[in-house]
Amino acid sequence: MTNLTLALDTMYEDKCPHVIVLAAMQALSSNSRLKLLLVGIPEILNPLLITNMHNRLEIIPAKYIISNNIRPLKAIRKSKGSSMRVTLELVKSGKAQACISAGNTAVLMGLAKLILKTINGIKRPALTIILPNKKQGKTVILDLGANINCSSQMLVQFAVMGAVMSKEIANISNPRVALLNIGEEESKGLDNIHTASLILKTIPSINYIGYLEGNELLTGKADVFICDGFVGNVMLKTMEGVIQVILYLIKSTIINNKKLLWCIKLIKPWLEKRISKCFEHLNPDKYNGASLLGLQGIVIKSHGSANQKAFNSAIEQAIQAVEKQIPNIIATKLNILLPKSD
Amino acid sequence: MTNLTLALDTMYEDKCPHVIVLAAMQALSSNSRLKLLLVGIPEILNPLLITNMHNRLEIIPAKYIISNNIRPLKAIRKSKGSSMRVTLELVKSGKAQACISAGNTAVLMGLAKLILKTINGIKRPALTIILPNKKQGKTVILDLGANINCSSQMLVQFAVMGAVMSKEIANISNPRVALLNIGEEESKGLDNIHTASLILKTIPSINYIGYLEGNELLTGKADVFICDGFVGNVMLKTMEGVIQVILYLIKSTIINNKKLLWCIKLIKPWLEKRISKCFEHLNPDKYNGASLLGLQGIVIKSHGSANQKAFNSAIEQAIQAVEKQIPNIIATKLNILLPKSD
Repeated sequence: MTNLTLALDTMYEDKCPHVIVLAAMQALSSNSRLKLLLVGIPEILNPLLITNMHNRLEIIPAKYIISNNIRPLKAIRKSKGSSMRVTLELVKSGKAQACISAGNTAVLMGLAKLILKTINGIKRPALTIILPNKKQGKTVILDLGANINCSSQMLVQFAVMGAVMSKEIANISNPRVALLNIGEEESKGLDNIHTASLILKTIPSINYIGYLEGNELLTGKADVFICDGFVGNVMLKTMEGVIQVILYLIKSTIINNKKLLWCIKLIKPWLEKRISKCFEHLNPDKYNGASLLGLQGIVIKSHGSANQKAFNSAIEQAIQAVEKQIPNIIATKLNILLPKSD
Repeated sequence: MTNLTLALDTMYEDKCPHVIVLAAMQALSSNSRLKLLLVGIPEILNPLLITNMHNRLEIIPAKYIISNNIRPLKAIRKSKGSSMRVTLELVKSGKAQACISAGNTAVLMGLAKLILKTINGIKRPALTIILPNKKQGKTVILDLGANINCSSQMLVQFAVMGAVMSKEIANISNPRVALLNIGEEESKGLDNIHTASLILKTIPSINYIGYLEGNELLTGKADVFICDGFVGNVMLKTMEGVIQVILYLIKSTIINNKKLLWCIKLIKPWLEKRISKCFEHLNPDKYNGASLLGLQGIVIKSHGSANQKAFNSAIEQAIQAVEKQIPNIIATKLNILLPKSD
């Protein structure tokens, strides 16, 4: 018997949903409790499933795909029948306990807010990721692009939500929360960050440790990093870019050097495997799946260019969030901690 | 005979100026045209120089050091006699053709603006760095922290200044200029970026190529990246942090693994050297020295934690800027390109 149902939006941009279908099959075979609802245009989805149909897989028809280039407000206004909206409505109606979409972030954020509503007291949801750090631990970072402008109140709410994620998903009992800034001194940075810092100091149940800079993101000095969505997005993309350039440099310098000693040639396959293993730790594929925290429902955003492995990570994230009942815990925590906002 | 004089602010925070003195000695021995003015508190500086005095080295006395924790406006108000101000005044009076300081960025920016003034048409100077990229080229990035809030007009001015740096220092004849954003589509990002994009499209002599994301910073897709100082600072620090974590991971995973094959042990010193060489390309030490562009004078900001090698890179940057007469070229370019601002 299944007791965990996820809805997957299989349609985004002009990409073939093949990768998502493969990831879905893999998830179903490795988790016997799971049922998946694949939302998409039947004419596109059916041919991919004809030989692969699984009894815990159901196709939910949608009429069209929201383009990546459309202005978010326009996309939301005209969203009826789109795969993204149908997916979110499955969570709203209770037919699915969580959903995943790789569509446009701003549209997903707006539509999710419209359909699922935010948790009482939360102004805006935040895109949240959990990254591995140098100390073999995990660091929660938010917001990664859902809100390009953030008030101090929003940053404080992100801190509360990030601390819940760190405790429930990364198993850190008293997570250290830091505000990302351009210096550790009180006077550095933007006004909204200064005010958020003052507020966080007054909340004893948040283990607020002050400002930290971008070079501390992966060192494990904090368990939760808070920033606005513009900065968070640039930071995450920069990190991905640097890792890719370094992998390229290693490959071209060490592995493909023609003047290599004979014993390096001998161990080349071993060396390649070691290097891959070493970087798996920071591999963006392995850490795909950002939670849209602050909603009355579980929504996971997948990277648009996610491969099968990466999409499976997003499915894993969704399952964990359902099991830990993240939205309920955030709601309870907010009720205790923060005064209601209008 | 000397024909190139630089002023070095040797005092910052509570650090011993030993590193700067060593870097100065090295620069003097490798460049016979160079003269250096070391600005600092004589009681601290003299003991370091007593056995090392060079005939092209002069000590310029200062009364005190500006603390890193002081609020910028207060620091600037009380700056008379400080090592940073004395250093900048040497450029103003023409006794030095350029200067270097490792002091507080915001104070350096404010004081430099007060003493040297900005180039006619420039609202605010920008901190600019040149990084190596994957395609063996160089990428100019600004602003890296001088201005935490930037208007669209400022971003456009940064584009003009960045293009001059790319052409003169990185020798790129028609540099491709991009605005850093959180997506490549027109509708993505903040209003000041949208407006800057519209203005840049109307300037035919700037080779503006649109928005690029953080993952393209080191790929060589653009020669100049424009962003506000908060984002630029977080991005640069994130890059430094990721490189350090990766170096640590490589060292602990590959080099110090106890189960290594005998032939790896044999080539361990060689492997370490190859890895270091591979990362030298992205080594923050090698790329220390950010230019404060837009001033009527040459000011280079060194990293506070710069070692001797890193401080020497900053001296190299200053020499290049003097030789290429960067401020004059920016002034000429602005006169042609942009309408005067008040």
